[in-house]
Formats: sequence, structure tokens, C-alpha cells
Amino acid sequence: MQLSEIYKLVQEDLARVESQIKSVSEVDSPGLAELSSYILAGGKGIRPALTLLSGKFCHYNLDLLLPMATAVELMHTATLVHDDAIDNSPVRRGRPTINEVWGEDKAILLGDYLFAKAGEFVASTGNLRVIKLFSQILQTISGGELDQSFDAFNLEQTRDHYLQRISSKTASLFSMATESGAILSQAPEESIEVLREYGYNLGIAFQIVDDVLDFIGTEEEMGKPVGSDLAQGTLTLPAMLLLERYPDDNPVKELFSSNDMPEGDKQERIKQAIELVCNSPIVQECYAVASDYCARACHKLGLLPDNTSRQALKDLADLVISRKR
Amino acid sequence: MQLSEIYKLVQEDLARVESQIKSVSEVDSPGLAELSSYILAGGKGIRPALTLLSGKFCHYNLDLLLPMATAVELMHTATLVHDDAIDNSPVRRGRPTINEVWGEDKAILLGDYLFAKAGEFVASTGNLRVIKLFSQILQTISGGELDQSFDAFNLEQTRDHYLQRISSKTASLFSMATESGAILSQAPEESIEVLREYGYNLGIAFQIVDDVLDFIGTEEEMGKPVGSDLAQGTLTLPAMLLLERYPDDNPVKELFSSNDMPEGDKQERIKQAIELVCNSPIVQECYAVASDYCARACHKLGLLPDNTSRQALKDLADLVISRKR
Repeated sequence: MQLSEIYKLVQEDLARVESQIKSVSEVDSPGLAELSSYILAGGKGIRPALTLLSGKFCHYNLDLLLPMATAVELMHTATLVHDDAIDNSPVRRGRPTINEVWGEDKAILLGDYLFAKAGEFVASTGNLRVIKLFSQILQTISGGELDQSFDAFNLEQTRDHYLQRISSKTASLFSMATESGAILSQAPEESIEVLREYGYNLGIAFQIVDDVLDFIGTEEEMGKPVGSDLAQGTLTLPAMLLLERYPDDNPVKELFSSNDMPEGDKQERIKQAIELVCNSPIVQECYAVASDYCARACHKLGLLPDNTSRQALKDLADLVISRKR
Repeated sequence: MQLSEIYKLVQEDLARVESQIKSVSEVDSPGLAELSSYILAGGKGIRPALTLLSGKFCHYNLDLLLPMATAVELMHTATLVHDDAIDNSPVRRGRPTINEVWGEDKAILLGDYLFAKAGEFVASTGNLRVIKLFSQILQTISGGELDQSFDAFNLEQTRDHYLQRISSKTASLFSMATESGAILSQAPEESIEVLREYGYNLGIAFQIVDDVLDFIGTEEEMGKPVGSDLAQGTLTLPAMLLLERYPDDNPVKELFSSNDMPEGDKQERIKQAIELVCNSPIVQECYAVASDYCARACHKLGLLPDNTSRQALKDLADLVISRKR
């Protein structure tokens, strides 16, 4: 199953979301126009697709779902722009980041602008429930990232810590994408809850796979250097399992314990960690955990009306596990 | 007239705003609690006072005005946190900035969190008009700051540029403060417009005085180093008038034209510019412009019901001109 087949059901409306997003860069200010058109080209689009698909179980109302799906993608983009500034990341999606080309100051302000623009699209739905959801999820994301940055290079983190972190960072936005689609199509409360849970668990699975790909992917596939989580001091599931497996002599432990390791030595440790992960069952273990979350995501989908959108959500869960980038 | 006398009318409710703001730092995450309680101590409180005073002309409803006034102050604080990160400012209100103590990454995330929190307070009013206003003003502020950062060290700026900049940066939030207070108290459209204009013009005057104080104030009064605008490459009204007065041999021109001036020479140029401004009628000229905006602010207040709040707004306009910090 290809992503394009899954999206078929909402293909035309996804194109409308894309053109709404592009319209954000049609502004008088030349600087803002340049930065926003640069950052708003491309993107995976899984989040807006989730909003549209989740709107297919009751009264599909494009007038409300279109601005909401647009807001979801803009909010995601804004968090990426700020994340890259925070991590000093030079590359994203195979292209230099905003901070790399225009500097960190522009990245901060562009992110703020995109948050505001996302807020405007959400407000235009006129639905107070999704408006409140939006500001709560933004708190969850930024609060979670703050926790993560306080936890950087900390080896004393449990798996619960990790799940908490990716829940705030990724699953919260996925759940907002599905929940808001359900709310705006006036789905019954039970369906809203089923779709919220679907989005949440899918988001956890998606992030675990992302974290594995940071070890086993190639720079070309990922559009950014592999091993970047370790370089930032972020302990993800594969690294945690590696620490459990080799508690004493471990390159991650060495990397996180030294404050003044020369850059070449750091890169060497990251390379060793990647090799150890790739030559162990850790990758399979991580996929097993992610599969479990995908199963949880789909668990209650049976409570929704049986339609092509429900099938698309199931297929999407399968695809999240098998994706390569 | 003292500020405390002007605020007397809303003193108790301002104390409630303060305690709402303090409650923002009562969170489980220790890192977030530490950062937010640090930044949310202190502040001038003119913006929330404007919201409360503007709510006094029709149905004063504290249940709505309290979250709105809180949101206005949180939004202002969030923009300051991001501004300081962008400018690498070490000191604000006489204390080290977030970026100085905890680093730029924490400042970015704390600012995002405070924006989200502000959004939650606005959403809790349940009033779509102020919710939309909030996201539009956040766009105006961040878009305006972006324009300013593209214009840094640019000598080819007109007075219109300057007014446009301070309109986005300061007047927009002042106008949101007053307009939202009027909307939430169900004031008639004419009164809403009078109060919006009052806030807007008062904000312009406030910022002009702020820009003058960056030349004539002391570090102790201002809580930050004087001449910081020039150091950031920001051309404000006093510097513009100085360039008009001395078009050829001018320390501002030298400062802005050189890419690689040693730090000591930069400081020398800033000192010269400050001296030249202080020993010329430029300060008086700037105050005349600010006074003109205060007069515009008060011009239509006569259309509002004649009450103590209207008098307080007039007194506040007088005070903005005479403030020393």
C-alpha cells in the first residue's frame, strides 16, 4: 500500500490545504514572504491528512476542516523551525534550515509568526473546543520540549521518561489532528475519543520509528545527518536499549558523560553506537514496541462506521511501521 | 499624579491579574516552574491595567476581563523573552535575562509556552472576536519584529518606517489591551473604536518615550544598558533626528556603516551619539512628537461616558510622557 493510495480519499482536499498553506507567504513584507515561502514548500502532510480523514465519519464540512488541517500543518512547521534553531541543526528535509541560512533570530520570529497564523486558521473555524485544544497542545509541545532540553545528556532516564517526552513532542499534535477533525464534523463523543486515541498512539509509533531511523536510515533518506539525536544529547529508545544491553562499556555512556570531548571523538562514539544498534536485535525490539502502539491505535477503530476512511486509517498505521523516511 | 493613583480604580483586580499570572508557574515540571516563576515576577502592568480600565464603560465583567488582562501581560512577557534571545540581551528590568542564565534554547521554548498559555486565557473568555484579535496581533508583532531585524543597521529608513515598526511592535498590543476590554464589556462599536484608537496612539507615544529613554536614561532607571538600540542596529526617532541634523560627520552613520568595527570603537560611537542627542533639542522634539500622539489618544475620549475610568485614561496619557523608566 502506497501513501498516495491511502490519501486518495482526501487527495483533492489535501491539495486545497497545500494551496492555503502557500497563501500564507503571500504578504507585503518581502523578508517574511521569502522566509515563509522557503519553509512552507514541501513537508510530509500526514498531519493534515489525519484531520481530513477523521472528518469523514459524520458531517464532513470542508469549510471547517480545511482551516483546521492548515493550522495543524502550520503549527507543526513552526515547532520544526524553533527546534532547528534550538539544536543549531544545519539541514532539514535535505535543505539548509532557516537558522542556517538566515540566522537564529529570523528562525525565532518566523516560528512565532507561523504559530500566530496557525492560531488565526483555528480561530476561523469559530469552534471554541478546537481553539482551546489548540492552545493546550501548544503548551504540551513547548513544555515537553523544555523538559527534554533540561534532560539533555542525562543518562538517568527511564522508558517512561522517553514515552512522556515523545507523547508531548509528537503524539499530542497527532491526537489534535484527529480529534479536531472529529469535533469539527460533529462526530459523537465516543467517536471523538476513538479518533483521539488513534492519533495519540499512531503518533507514539511514528516517533519511535523516527528515532530508529535516526540510527538505521541514511542521510539521503532522512534529509538530515543520522545520529543527530545522540549529537543533541537526546536519549531515544534505541539508545536506551543499547545502554541496558551494554551497561558498562558503552559509547553512548561515554558520549553523555564527557563535557569536553573533542568533536572527532564524539563522532566516533556516535558511529560506534549506530553500528552496535544495527548489529543487534534492538531495531527489531523498537519496531515491536512501535507495532504495539499501532495495534493500540487501531484497537477501537471498529467502533467507528465502516467506511473507506476507516480502512485508510488502518492502512496508515501499517505504513507508519514500514516507512523508511 | 502617581501611577498608583491612576490604577486605584482597578487596584484590587490588578492584584487578581498578578496572582493569575503567578499561578502559571505552578506546574509539575520543575524546569518550567523555575523559568516561569523567574520571568513572571515583576513587570510594569500598564497593559493589563488598560484592559481593566477599558472594561469600565459598559458591563464590567471580571470573569472575562481577568483572563484577558492576564493574557495581554503573558503575551507581552513572551515577546520580551524572545526579543532578549534574539538580541542576546544580558539584562532586563535590572535582572539577568532568561537567555543569559539558561541559554537561548530555553528562552525560545519558554516564550512559546507563554504564548500558548496566553492563548488559553484568551480562549477561556469564549469570545471569538477577542480570540481572532489575539492571533492577528501576534502576527503583527512577530511580522513587525521580522521587518525590524531585516532593517537592522540600515541607514535608509524614513520616519514612516519607524512609525510602522513601533506600531507593530508596541502600539498593536496596547490597542489589543484596550479594544479587548471594550469588547468584553459589551461596549457599543463606537466606544470600542475610541478605546482601540486610544490604546494605539498611547502605545506609539509610550514607545517613542522608551526610545528617548534609551538615550537619556541611566542604566539604573532603565534596568538595562543605555544605547542598547544603537548597539542592536535599531534606528529609533532620536537617532533619525540626529542623522538629519548632522548628515555628514555622524557617529550613528559610522557605527551602522562599518561591519567590523572593534567593540571599543562601537561603544565610543554610541557614547558620542548619546552625548550629541542629550546636548541638542532632539530630546524635546521627540517628546513633542510623543505628546502629539498622547493628544490623539485622548482626542475622542470625550465620546465615552464621563466616569473616573475616563479620567484615569487621560491621566495615564499625561504620565506616559513624564515617565522616567
